[in-house]
Amino acid sequence: MNAFSFKIIHQSCKSRARVGQIKTAHGVIDTPNFVTVGTNGTIKAIDSSLIQSLGLQLMFCNTYHLILQPGADIIEQCGGIHAFSNCSIPIITDSGGFQVFSLKYGSVHEELKSKGTKKNENSVLKITEDGVLFRSYRDGTPVLLTPETSIQAQKKIGADIIVSFDELPPYHTTPKKLYYSLERTHRWEQRSLEEHKKNPKHQGLYAVIHGGLDVELRKKSCEFLGKLPFDGYGIGGSLGKTRDDMVTMLQHVMPYVPTDKPNHLLGIGDIPSLEQCVPLGIDTFDSSHPTKAARHGLLFTKKGPMRLIKSGHATLQRPIEDDCTCLTCQKYTVAYLCHLFKAHEMTVLTLASIHNLHFMVNLMKDFRSKIMNDEV
Amino acid sequence: MNAFSFKIIHQSCKSRARVGQIKTAHGVIDTPNFVTVGTNGTIKAIDSSLIQSLGLQLMFCNTYHLILQPGADIIEQCGGIHAFSNCSIPIITDSGGFQVFSLKYGSVHEELKSKGTKKNENSVLKITEDGVLFRSYRDGTPVLLTPETSIQAQKKIGADIIVSFDELPPYHTTPKKLYYSLERTHRWEQRSLEEHKKNPKHQGLYAVIHGGLDVELRKKSCEFLGKLPFDGYGIGGSLGKTRDDMVTMLQHVMPYVPTDKPNHLLGIGDIPSLEQCVPLGIDTFDSSHPTKAARHGLLFTKKGPMRLIKSGHATLQRPIEDDCTCLTCQKYTVAYLCHLFKAHEMTVLTLASIHNLHFMVNLMKDFRSKIMNDEV
Repeated sequence: MNAFSFKIIHQSCKSRARVGQIKTAHGVIDTPNFVTVGTNGTIKAIDSSLIQSLGLQLMFCNTYHLILQPGADIIEQCGGIHAFSNCSIPIITDSGGFQVFSLKYGSVHEELKSKGTKKNENSVLKITEDGVLFRSYRDGTPVLLTPETSIQAQKKIGADIIVSFDELPPYHTTPKKLYYSLERTHRWEQRSLEEHKKNPKHQGLYAVIHGGLDVELRKKSCEFLGKLPFDGYGIGGSLGKTRDDMVTMLQHVMPYVPTDKPNHLLGIGDIPSLEQCVPLGIDTFDSSHPTKAARHGLLFTKKGPMRLIKSGHATLQRPIEDDCTCLTCQKYTVAYLCHLFKAHEMTVLTLASIHNLHFMVNLMKDFRSKIMNDEV
Repeated sequence: MNAFSFKIIHQSCKSRARVGQIKTAHGVIDTPNFVTVGTNGTIKAIDSSLIQSLGLQLMFCNTYHLILQPGADIIEQCGGIHAFSNCSIPIITDSGGFQVFSLKYGSVHEELKSKGTKKNENSVLKITEDGVLFRSYRDGTPVLLTPETSIQAQKKIGADIIVSFDELPPYHTTPKKLYYSLERTHRWEQRSLEEHKKNPKHQGLYAVIHGGLDVELRKKSCEFLGKLPFDGYGIGGSLGKTRDDMVTMLQHVMPYVPTDKPNHLLGIGDIPSLEQCVPLGIDTFDSSHPTKAARHGLLFTKKGPMRLIKSGHATLQRPIEDDCTCLTCQKYTVAYLCHLFKAHEMTVLTLASIHNLHFMVNLMKDFRSKIMNDEV
């Protein structure tokens, strides 16, 4: 029996937004929701024992990082990622494809900036129909990632939600290359599904809808993948150069994404994007933005982002937000946090991350409550 | 009324070791005890809200660092160091002298290694009978530290225990220079006491016994300072090149340190030193060693220090110590901690620090219990 299920609790009358609930072997995920990033099996600067009290319901770990350190076998030997990291909330892993292709093209940002000229060919040794051969950044050993090895690794890691192996074409590509990449991605995803079906365990398998900014290709991807028995649908690949590109694409594509399964917008979680994408019917969003921003001294407030280092903050004897109930705001003033940041004390990285994650949890609660009232 | 007091609960029959209790406005310190270092008003990688649950009873903050960032005025304006850092346990600040003179001679270790030739004259601008003029490492502004300005800063910071301003002669000095330095230190400490008496607040003022490795000078220092109404006695200055140097000196000197007041061995807190110095009657020890060791992946156990990165640890599904009750051992295995360390996740710095501090708290409890039973 598959422990993974999804139900829609309320469909807004005002938009495509819906409130739903994903059930997994490790607990429930209320949707729409924000998914915290814990690349290596920990949120940066936050001990897993805090995750549940923060109200987070899903952590996104990266298969690429975990297979290189500590290795999927070690995680399996230690009872799977939940036991290994003593994490009590549901976990999702990606396929590793995104990071491998990022090695080739550089990060999304770098690739966009370089107009497709940036290449780090050295780490990716070969891309064939079978999969991708790359060098471990840790010790240089060659690693072969295919639909089958990615799913096998994700079985060993043992997250509640796993993701099909896909090819990530760069933003700067030709229509022809994008077309062939989509075809290959579909073949790889089908192979991922076959591999998953051999041993579903407690895991739900998500497909990843591709097609870049080409709406027709995206629709084709929805149609092809929507017919296969995936448990959910990620939206991946290039989402465009700007937020507007992404929103325009999603406006056209979301009506074709299966509505009876949960969907996930990969790698997007900044607040303006959430505000625009929740009404389009996106269920979950993962992003390292809240914790990365925190570590750079950028704190989320209802009035917008606040820089910790700012004139007047050195003596500001008030919490980041007066009515915030997070651990950080309950205990510390902006003056103290500002001091810790200036003194390069890593304690502040933890405290700021706690605040931003708490903010995200509440923001998503608000979204759900507004959808329930048909206000979104 | 002075909130600071000390009483001896039990004097061992076997050694000079004693169990005592220091009372301060912010709580009790059972002695002998380990004093955790929180240079900038936080233990590195540990949020103040954990300090009390760890069982720590005294935190050592550095006046030199605090006057440069955020500044004593800001701490005062924010209600003193306890309110500012939301720290619920007693706090001790040093005078700032140690760091200023370290700027001149390099760290104790560097000075010893360089045989006294290492100089960083640029940062220390002038040493006179008045005090020391140095440049802020933060913005280059000149700062004058004198007995009066040090005590005034420590009043503003508002720790429970403050320390007299002293001169720190290097290990490599001449007997004549050491003699004159001691004379000056005594004048500076007397001036510190005068300044303190103007406004004792809730604070206890410790003297610092000097004299380097010269036992006669140390005795002279005990005699001179012991006659003055200090609330406690630090043992500072050069403690020698080796632990044996230090222990030999303390064996000769401790009988001359006033027994009715608490004493503190400055900057020493490694476990072998504690084992040798508790029987000599030392009451408190401060050291950044347990937290620094933790951040370098060295964990304390009853069987001795354990390297986190070691063959076999990547799959070791046991806590650091099976019977340890610390948060880290209750929740995480060596395999997971080892992974976090290899993945450069800062979460492990917090988790390892929690374990080592918990170890120190229990080690000191054991010492007290053994003294109560005249076993030490």
